[in-house]
Amino acid sequence: MLTLYQDPRSGNCYKAVLTAAHLGIPLKTVDIDVTSGVTRKPDFLAKNPNGRVPTLEFEDGRHLPESNAIIWYLAEGSALIPADRFARAQMLQWMFFEQYSHEPYIAVARFWMVFASKEQLRQKEHLIPEWHTKGNAALGVMEDRLKKNDWFVGQAYSLADIALHAYTHCAEEGGFNLKKYPAVSAWLSRVAATKGFVPMGASR
Amino acid sequence: MLTLYQDPRSGNCYKAVLTAAHLGIPLKTVDIDVTSGVTRKPDFLAKNPNGRVPTLEFEDGRHLPESNAIIWYLAEGSALIPADRFARAQMLQWMFFEQYSHEPYIAVARFWMVFASKEQLRQKEHLIPEWHTKGNAALGVMEDRLKKNDWFVGQAYSLADIALHAYTHCAEEGGFNLKKYPAVSAWLSRVAATKGFVPMGASR
Repeated sequence: MLTLYQDPRSGNCYKAVLTAAHLGIPLKTVDIDVTSGVTRKPDFLAKNPNGRVPTLEFEDGRHLPESNAIIWYLAEGSALIPADRFARAQMLQWMFFEQYSHEPYIAVARFWMVFASKEQLRQKEHLIPEWHTKGNAALGVMEDRLKKNDWFVGQAYSLADIALHAYTHCAEEGGFNLKKYPAVSAWLSRVAATKGFVPMGASR
Repeated sequence: MLTLYQDPRSGNCYKAVLTAAHLGIPLKTVDIDVTSGVTRKPDFLAKNPNGRVPTLEFEDGRHLPESNAIIWYLAEGSALIPADRFARAQMLQWMFFEQYSHEPYIAVARFWMVFASKEQLRQKEHLIPEWHTKGNAALGVMEDRLKKNDWFVGQAYSLADIALHAYTHCAEEGGFNLKKYPAVSAWLSRVAATKGFVPMGASR
């Protein structure tokens, strides 16, 4: 069986749990507190030299880090990856958008505002306006797409939806107002109604 | 023919030029100065609502943004994407690493230090130590891999090498010292010796 090293509060880890649940792939989870520093210790660095969760472990001892690479691996051959070449590239486009233009603002705001100590937050507080400006820009790009389409790519639920759902559904914990994005909010409900859906942290 | 909207000084754009050159895919380039603000104007936002280059344009008017999605599209069916499922996921792992843990520090340091005005740089100057710490961490992860392997995935040149070469080869412009990374430096020479290699900006 595959083992997922994860922090159940992490949206990046949740992507792997949700993909496996949708596809009916058994997944053993090992919970790790990312705020404890354990991912930067030698034992964990042997699994992922970049020192982050999620990291997927195979029975033969191989490891695969990076949330969006993990869900790609899990979903190969399934309907979560479009069969059309252009659609497949569009799916990756949204997944790279998620990691570059969305996660560094929306997930990061939530992390410091919810999981850091008050003292740690004080050192980051001056960055909140920039996180909110750039995070709202990303939500605006998503709103634009979802006004005209039920899903990010073509007419079907794909890894792009799973990747973008991860930190969008909990964006309000980082101070974002999802009421300003009705098409995004309706899409969040559509994702929550997909086959095998589990909420974040459900694997605990 | 495919058209690439690009800034010839951008490593993200260079990835697409280098992939097309290696594969012998004809590519028309349209140069855009990213510092001019033109990518945030309505004409360009109609091509890419996220307002960035590179953006690939198809003859039928479709568009594909995001550098790593573009090179995936160009390389489908070629040896630049490994045939093995695990190796393919590892390639994506390094491509997501590049966009999340490498580009935001190494490319960003170069952008502000080389292309911004002195006044703009002054406003960002306090971030340079963080860019250098995190960028050097990424270079350390790369050095670790390349000490034991010629390429990032398996035994062959892949999109992971093209993605990571883009801003590594010019990292010294952002204040990084590549002499500290001999395995990375040797790999840069291997990339420069690949079939069809062109230096950044050569398409101008």
